[in-house]
Amino acid sequence: MALIVQKYGGTSVGSTERIKHVAGRVAAYRGKGHRVVVIVSAMSGVTDRLIGLARDIMPLPNEREMDMLLATGEQTTIALTAMALHALKVPAISLTGAQAGITTDGVHTKAKIQNITPKQVHRLLDDGNVVIVAGFQGQTPEGQITTLGRGGSDLSAIAMAGALKADLCQIYTDVDGVYTSDPRVVPSARKLGEISYDEMLELAGAGAKVMQLRSVEFAKKFKVVFEVRSSLNDNPGTIVKEETQSMESVVIRGVSLDRNQAKITLVHVPDQPGAAARIFKAIADSAINVDMIVQTASHGAGGATDISFTIDKPDLLKAKKVLDGIGNAIGFKHAAADENISKVSIVGVGMRSHSGVAAKMFEALADAGINIEMISTSEIKISVVVKADKGESATRILHRVFLE
Amino acid sequence: MALIVQKYGGTSVGSTERIKHVAGRVAAYRGKGHRVVVIVSAMSGVTDRLIGLARDIMPLPNEREMDMLLATGEQTTIALTAMALHALKVPAISLTGAQAGITTDGVHTKAKIQNITPKQVHRLLDDGNVVIVAGFQGQTPEGQITTLGRGGSDLSAIAMAGALKADLCQIYTDVDGVYTSDPRVVPSARKLGEISYDEMLELAGAGAKVMQLRSVEFAKKFKVVFEVRSSLNDNPGTIVKEETQSMESVVIRGVSLDRNQAKITLVHVPDQPGAAARIFKAIADSAINVDMIVQTASHGAGGATDISFTIDKPDLLKAKKVLDGIGNAIGFKHAAADENISKVSIVGVGMRSHSGVAAKMFEALADAGINIEMISTSEIKISVVVKADKGESATRILHRVFLE
Repeated sequence: MALIVQKYGGTSVGSTERIKHVAGRVAAYRGKGHRVVVIVSAMSGVTDRLIGLARDIMPLPNEREMDMLLATGEQTTIALTAMALHALKVPAISLTGAQAGITTDGVHTKAKIQNITPKQVHRLLDDGNVVIVAGFQGQTPEGQITTLGRGGSDLSAIAMAGALKADLCQIYTDVDGVYTSDPRVVPSARKLGEISYDEMLELAGAGAKVMQLRSVEFAKKFKVVFEVRSSLNDNPGTIVKEETQSMESVVIRGVSLDRNQAKITLVHVPDQPGAAARIFKAIADSAINVDMIVQTASHGAGGATDISFTIDKPDLLKAKKVLDGIGNAIGFKHAAADENISKVSIVGVGMRSHSGVAAKMFEALADAGINIEMISTSEIKISVVVKADKGESATRILHRVFLE
Repeated sequence: MALIVQKYGGTSVGSTERIKHVAGRVAAYRGKGHRVVVIVSAMSGVTDRLIGLARDIMPLPNEREMDMLLATGEQTTIALTAMALHALKVPAISLTGAQAGITTDGVHTKAKIQNITPKQVHRLLDDGNVVIVAGFQGQTPEGQITTLGRGGSDLSAIAMAGALKADLCQIYTDVDGVYTSDPRVVPSARKLGEISYDEMLELAGAGAKVMQLRSVEFAKKFKVVFEVRSSLNDNPGTIVKEETQSMESVVIRGVSLDRNQAKITLVHVPDQPGAAARIFKAIADSAINVDMIVQTASHGAGGATDISFTIDKPDLLKAKKVLDGIGNAIGFKHAAADENISKVSIVGVGMRSHSGVAAKMFEALADAGINIEMISTSEIKISVVVKADKGESATRILHRVFLE
């Protein structure tokens, strides 16, 4: 008999029919003698509808009030899910984030979990209940309702699993697990049986959409093992956990393609101390996330260099404006923007102990006539920027070379 | 500078446009220097939609979970109302029933307010905020979310006004106030400037739909003066308060028509002690509300009597079933049901000090050829049952005789 935390996302609870389906799955686990805590998101579409109502009233609503508003989405789902379990004669009780003891800081709309006091959850489990907890939300020590931001329900589940010392944390979603690559791009992509936190982090950072970075970081920090699996079938999913020795035998865990990046090149930046710092401070002050940064060697005597970096595509106009504003002061010639790029990454803890991975990657791309525009590496990831129309073929080639 | 509690019902906050309109009104009061607490209901239609979702899942959902579900309706409105005030540059903050310190008993879906601790409301008012409180909901001392049942938002407003010792409590609705009669039936009906709690109670009990009985009872008990007025215009409404001497100079305050009653006559009930008690206990045990009861004198020696009473029309079938089940045991001949009736009532504290009111009423109806089937009186009300097709004309005749 295990204590299992299950998290169901918005699509999995997107209608009363889907909620009944979720209840059936929960009831089956409970029927096997397990104790189950269920974390649910708002029904798909509800959060957007609520945001729409708020925007009808004012373009930039107060964030405390947004939390008050958005928290109703998950509260609706927990009540309906408890009812659906009752309909199956399973004792169940719903708790808001606050009632479940999820305490956060006071940064509304993107609060951080500070502490979980699962006394109430334990008591209700001991009484034989399935406990349904509203994901994505918590309460400050002063009793203000907060929400955790994008991916918040995953975070609720992983944090609750950690606090309860659960035997298993299952993240139910609309995909079967984590794949070696996006199956829509690489038809031969395979589902992974397991993956390390770090690989999962690098894949998420490289454009794989399965989970938000912060949930994986949280799981890594508190050593919460979790499984990503589908709510639409009974296939086993992918276990995400600490790196094991056996994981290193696989050189590359996955290949990811990110089409959402744009490249900016600053031409002829004076090769002076502090130039790069001033540039990236201006970018950061505008809340623009920079991903890859590459600086070429200085152009001989006289001292000027080119700096290229990538940002999220939607931030491109804003970044151009910032850079045009500081160009004269810093002394670079101009900022060239290129939206027509893709980033392709290979990820694997095995590359630490296998040499020649980068060479093999570049060679495979060269053989296919694909030009590399930028390169960036971390300990367990190599990313390259290529022309957008070469992104898919580069992904397929690297998958074939490293994973087939 | 006054402290004003304003309550807006579901229709008044039925869309984001309507909510902006409410915010404009609140802002105007605040602009005059008043401190304002706003109680809002769920947007019209929302509660029914939530009930529909629950019913999709099971026919009789658990009441604790219904409260968890329904409380989201008002929570949505408070957040949107606070935003609408922000859009007008008015500092405003929303509070759930629990946050506002509304403590109830644990009878889910029809909880009773036990206590209001408005510390938080006072603090936020002192900081210069308009405070928006979710109506219809509260929290048990153990932290369970509860709702107050039909008319609960009115109750929240009146209880909050009492707890805050507010100078004024305004109940905004879609009618202009309390009328001498239903203007759709009696075109010459007038809006009343003021009315006593008791008159309001008798009118509500007699079919006038302005407010639920329990809110008026609560206001009477805690001596909360309130005004019923329209959220669609700036006309003064009707003040509901304790009886004053001047109110007695008006004999009749209003005439009401209730088309929602049905009559049952039990023929030839044995004239024995306890027969009536057994009959009405059986009816009460089936949760059927009885309104008027009339027992005629015994039919000479041998001892049998007829008993007539009225109940809500939707309960008629259930009542027939109950009565058919106990007919033999108690010994009455049969239960005759009549749906084709209307109840017409005249109400006024002045009738205490004016004699001949009943005689004048019966005479007016007799002159119009309207037959009276049942009569029932209280200290400040006289009700008669007439054929359904005579209900409207009886109402108009009594309005003309007593109020024009």
